[in-house]
Amino acid sequence: MERDFIRWLSHRVRSQTSVPVGIGDDAAVLAPSRDGLVVTTDMLMDGVDFDSRKDDARRIGRKSLAVNLSDLAAMAARPEAAVIALALPRSGGRALGEGIYEGLFPLASEFGVTIVGGDTNSWDGPLVISVTALGRVHSRGPLLRSGARPDDEILVTGMLGGSILGRHFDFTPRVREAIWLHERFTLHAGIDISDGLSLDLARLAEASGCGAVVDLAQVPVSPQAHELASLRADGVSALDHALGDGEDFELVLAVPPDEAHKILTSPSLPVPITRIGRFTHESGLWKLLDDGSHEPLTPVGFEHRLA
Amino acid sequence: MERDFIRWLSHRVRSQTSVPVGIGDDAAVLAPSRDGLVVTTDMLMDGVDFDSRKDDARRIGRKSLAVNLSDLAAMAARPEAAVIALALPRSGGRALGEGIYEGLFPLASEFGVTIVGGDTNSWDGPLVISVTALGRVHSRGPLLRSGARPDDEILVTGMLGGSILGRHFDFTPRVREAIWLHERFTLHAGIDISDGLSLDLARLAEASGCGAVVDLAQVPVSPQAHELASLRADGVSALDHALGDGEDFELVLAVPPDEAHKILTSPSLPVPITRIGRFTHESGLWKLLDDGSHEPLTPVGFEHRLA
Repeated sequence: MERDFIRWLSHRVRSQTSVPVGIGDDAAVLAPSRDGLVVTTDMLMDGVDFDSRKDDARRIGRKSLAVNLSDLAAMAARPEAAVIALALPRSGGRALGEGIYEGLFPLASEFGVTIVGGDTNSWDGPLVISVTALGRVHSRGPLLRSGARPDDEILVTGMLGGSILGRHFDFTPRVREAIWLHERFTLHAGIDISDGLSLDLARLAEASGCGAVVDLAQVPVSPQAHELASLRADGVSALDHALGDGEDFELVLAVPPDEAHKILTSPSLPVPITRIGRFTHESGLWKLLDDGSHEPLTPVGFEHRLA
Repeated sequence: MERDFIRWLSHRVRSQTSVPVGIGDDAAVLAPSRDGLVVTTDMLMDGVDFDSRKDDARRIGRKSLAVNLSDLAAMAARPEAAVIALALPRSGGRALGEGIYEGLFPLASEFGVTIVGGDTNSWDGPLVISVTALGRVHSRGPLLRSGARPDDEILVTGMLGGSILGRHFDFTPRVREAIWLHERFTLHAGIDISDGLSLDLARLAEASGCGAVVDLAQVPVSPQAHELASLRADGVSALDHALGDGEDFELVLAVPPDEAHKILTSPSLPVPITRIGRFTHESGLWKLLDDGSHEPLTPVGFEHRLA
């Protein structure tokens, strides 16, 4: 019964001294914010974002919060709180619900996120998890998608592709890295890679009113992208995986050239950072050719299709 | 495709001057808050909270926001923003999604709510809508569940029961009424009736560490509760419907006796308000008997059941 579950949950998160009003009332109350609040929401569905028959509930729960923290990272915001809405299958729902929370609690704790509320439901349908995460705007302001300018360098954190082999569950959202960079360098724009490097880069460029030329030879292709290409042997290369797989949850940044140089030569980066190209006046997504010219690069990635 | 849908949506909500960053980035940004922020989330599922085969998408969409605004009302908070996560069936999902938004836009506009973000997904499952609403804490502070004291009067807004006949879609969340009362009178506690008067009153009493005695003769039974009792002729009385139906989305308030008297004799109430009993030292839920004594009243209402 929901009542028991809420009791369990309230007990589990009882030390909520970080917020004025946490779980247990009609709504939660967050303390006043000086620089504004960042809010983002992501919904995960069984059969789309995970497979509840195979995947451990704790990994599913962790992912449901992690994808939201990745969005806060893309704004260089400091995570503060989250609310969790669940549609649990009636049969086995209690254990599933507990597993989900047990999976997200350690991540919440690691990133200073207080679970301030939720809505726990049961039904005859598959598992759905909807998380809304809230964060504080950094005193330097939020990092937006729309600030890239022609000649900015395109930087990317980490290694890309093949996340389906496990990293889409176990990735670390780049919250600390985003704040670290935002505090030390001038960043013009940022986005997290949820749907695929090429697609998300194209979105950032479009939002900024410019284009982007990618030097494909520089794209940091992950070992998992190589592994996936050889496992499947379907003609999709490791580079294709890096460009289009999605769920890397790494950051793409637009950085002015002198700042990019400082970042790339910094001796103490918290994560590997690679330059993969530059933004241009000419709109669209392009790949760099050997002679310095460029030709169109089709954005590839995950998009929900509606009829 | 999601891209087209997001374009449609961004176009539809383009005048978002009320927030620093609205739809279109990785997350939204809300302006700084002086008194704190209230956050609440509610998820609606096909076959549980509505029936997409019969119910118009616009009514479903309106309800998905309205239930959240009712939670803000229960905190006497001023609505400000909302994010909307959708799991749309692949077939017909585009029209359904548009209908949902067309249904919630007028309500959002009426209550000053900016739709600042969302997550639109498609899948092979039934429709799920998860809304998170954000509001400003009133300068007098939030209205909590836990503030009722023995001898406080139990006041309730509106008429109860039979909401399934249509009011569960078309109710007006008591946002204005809650703020009006909170500004003029001393309210000790409040809750909105989502799961049933008796169940939600018992929750308020328990959160406040006291009990409640209800004078059943005073419960404002709605015409729809009477209609439902005679339609069904199943032995469930109109009063039973008022006590246990849920989805009334009226407010139950704990008010000290002198303030309750002022409210009940006020010539300008924005909604009918009825006294239905009082809070007691003795915990539990009770019904008043003719001789002034009381006997147990079993809380009845909607609870999700998990196995």
